Parts: sequence; structure tokens; C-alpha cells
Amino acid sequence: MDIDAAVFDVFGTLTDWRSSVTEALAETGGRAGLSADWAAVTDAWRRSYRPALGKVLSGELAWRPLDELHRLTLDEVLPAHGLGALGEAERQELVRAWHRLRAWPDAASGLEELCRGPVVTATLSNGGFGQVTRLVKQAGLRFDCVLSAELAKSYKPDPRVYLMAAELLGVEPRRLLMVACHPDDLEAAATAGLRTAYIPRPLEWGPDAAPVAPPTAVDLVAADVPALAHMLRGAAR
Amino acid sequence: MDIDAAVFDVFGTLTDWRSSVTEALAETGGRAGLSADWAAVTDAWRRSYRPALGKVLSGELAWRPLDELHRLTLDEVLPAHGLGALGEAERQELVRAWHRLRAWPDAASGLEELCRGPVVTATLSNGGFGQVTRLVKQAGLRFDCVLSAELAKSYKPDPRVYLMAAELLGVEPRRLLMVACHPDDLEAAATAGLRTAYIPRPLEWGPDAAPVAPPTAVDLVAADVPALAHMLRGAAR
Repeated sequence: MDIDAAVFDVFGTLTDWRSSVTEALAETGGRAGLSADWAAVTDAWRRSYRPALGKVLSGELAWRPLDELHRLTLDEVLPAHGLGALGEAERQELVRAWHRLRAWPDAASGLEELCRGPVVTATLSNGGFGQVTRLVKQAGLRFDCVLSAELAKSYKPDPRVYLMAAELLGVEPRRLLMVACHPDDLEAAATAGLRTAYIPRPLEWGPDAAPVAPPTAVDLVAADVPALAHMLRGAAR
Repeated sequence: MDIDAAVFDVFGTLTDWRSSVTEALAETGGRAGLSADWAAVTDAWRRSYRPALGKVLSGELAWRPLDELHRLTLDEVLPAHGLGALGEAERQELVRAWHRLRAWPDAASGLEELCRGPVVTATLSNGGFGQVTRLVKQAGLRFDCVLSAELAKSYKPDPRVYLMAAELLGVEPRRLLMVACHPDDLEAAATAGLRTAYIPRPLEWGPDAAPVAPPTAVDLVAADVPALAHMLRGAAR
């Protein structure tokens, strides 16, 4: 496959948001003397993310950074789990938990290998530009550059986000590979004219989650990031 | 000095555009059977850059990527040096010479050290986003992310470019350090509220060029990038 650049989803595909945010909730909530099924709170918070994005994409909500969407949804999720007592400082701290996520164990070495090759690598995340920059730096995930949906003042799966990436990188969409563990992200990228690579992350929603149906039509399937790096070796001109 | 992020000028501060572009001109022109004082052609091309930027900033020219400005000015410079015979393919090749510049010998190790520390590092270049991404990748210059004036659809020294960097990185301008070898870049950054670091590059215009007057008011002066990295160790929160 001839590609010039590969862009990566970050939440889920490269980082284990669930265990990281669950830990942050348990720590912040515990300090405040509260108790809850913290993983269930994390899952509810994450599930509220797509509907919030949908409101932005439909125009019901004006575009705002992901941090602000996370805060809106947190303020809904906490009282629903008996955690309405959490204060302002704690809520701000929890929003920032999404800036420090643990990488999946294979991600750093695979990205490092890709950076040494000819294919340009970038994030393509719904996280804010600064948020994703700090997140990948602290997680040790190396890229040639950072791209965020913020640069298109929209969110994936809006096709403008994928096309913004192609335009800024100066590559044709058909020579740009979107890498993600979420079938809907890959389907939207393919519709925008990009190539697609699927990396399954069966543990994204925890060990007890129902299996995710794999996407039906992608260009590549790789077990993890090093396997993808191996497939892409020598792919660029 | 308390800073959260450092942004770097690229052409001149980190890369030796003069020897790199002179080589490209000599090679492309030589292949076409032409001869000239190639370094003088390079200098003339580079000198035509500020006036071209000025036309964009004054509104005389609509904003366009740096590649297109380089092409406009190349088309003026070539005939003035008896090189009007160079064809379309050669001219395109010469514009792309600005995508592959040799780094100054100290730059890679200093940037690598900075990337391992807490301060977020980025380019802040008038080069296009994709152009700078490829340039730093091929030159082995590591950053946490790439920023380009293209993201503000303007050019330095427009204050909007410096403020765009602060906004995208999510840092206050007074906690953002602009690093450059060009006094006017640093003065404009300071006027926009940023901190400034000067790295002299006495060889930027070649060994016989007149010395550049150092800037009068900067926050830091460093002999090279490793010296700057040493000064910034532990600077971020």
C-alpha cells in the first residue's frame, strides 16, 4: 500500500482511557470521602461523549474544546452516581485526567519505529491540540506532529476533520492512512477518501465488555502498533 | 524562568538553509548546463522573502503557502541571475529544496534533550505545516508538536501567529518562550507578550556575511540548543 502519512486515533487506539480515568476518579472521589463503582462512573462518562459530540455536529451546541464537553458531561454523570457533592476543584482535576492517560503497552515502541521510517505520523484526535500534545508527551508516544479536530473546529466523524489532516500534511487523502480501533472512525475516514487500518483493542471497555464487531471494509488489520509499523515499512515514496 | 512551552524558529535558527539551498541550486542548475554564483542566487532568493511576506501582511497579496511565495520569488530571482532558462520541473524541485534543509550540528541533540524534559517544544515557523513536518523529520529534529504560521493563515511577525501558538498549546503567552536567531522575530514575540531566547547563528548568511546586531532586550541568550536545554531544565511546572 502506497501511503505518505498515517494518522492515529488516541483515546482507545493508543491509550487505555478506562483504567486511567477510573484511577483518577477513585483517587479524587476517595479524597472527598465518596465511594462508587468508579469504573461504572468512567464508562457512563465516556458513553456520554458521543451524544455530546453529536450535539456539536448537529449545531445544537456551538463548537467548544473537548475539555469543556468533558466538563458538561461530568456535571451530568456525577449526580446520577450519587457524586454530586464533588466540588469545583475536583471536577477540574477530573477533566484534566484525560490529559494524562496510560498508553497501551505496545504503542510507544511501534510509534518510535514508525518515526524512524519514511511515513509521516500524526495524531488525529478529538482531544484539543494542547491536550493531545501533553498527553502523548507524558505517555512517551512519539509522532512527527500532532493533529487535532480542534484545527478544523469540529470533531470526528465530520469529514472536514479527515480532509483537514490531508490538507495540512500536504498529502492526497488516498495516500493518508487513518489508524483506529473504532469502526465508525474508520468508516468516516474511508468515506472522506482516506485509507484505513484497524487495530482491535478488546480491553478498551474493560475485561468484561461485550466484543466489538470489527469493521467490515478496511485496508489493513494489525494486531498492534508494532505490527502496523512492520506492514508500513517502506510504504512512503 | 517559569515557562511551560518553547517554540522555535526553523529557517536559520535550527537549519542551515544557505548551504542546503545553494547545493540544490548548483545541482539542479548544473544538470541543466547552467552556471552561476549559486550562493549569491540563494542569498538573493532569501532576501526576496521578507518583501514577499510584507506584501501578504499588508494585504497586497492574499495569504498563500510559503511554497507559493518561494515560487513567486524564484521566478523573479532566476532571470536576474541569467537563469531564466530553468524549466518548470526544475523550479518545482528548487521550491522543494526548502523542505530538506541541513540542521545545524547542535540542534538535534539539544531538541532531543528538551523533549525528555517537562517543557513542551514546538516549531513556530513561516514554513507550511506539512513542509515543516517533513523538514524536521528528515533533519532528525524532534519536537513534541509542529506549529506553523499556516495555522493562523498569516506569517510572523504578525502577532496573531505568536498568540495562535499560545492558544493552541493552552499556555499563557508569558509562559511561552520564542527561540530564534532573528532579532525581529523575537521583538515581535515579546510585543505579543511571549518570553524570548536568542541563539546567535553567525554563519546563517555564510562565513563572509556582516555580523548581525544582537537583539537589545531578550529574556535569555544561549550559545546553541543544548545550552538552552540546560538553562530550561526543570523550567515547567
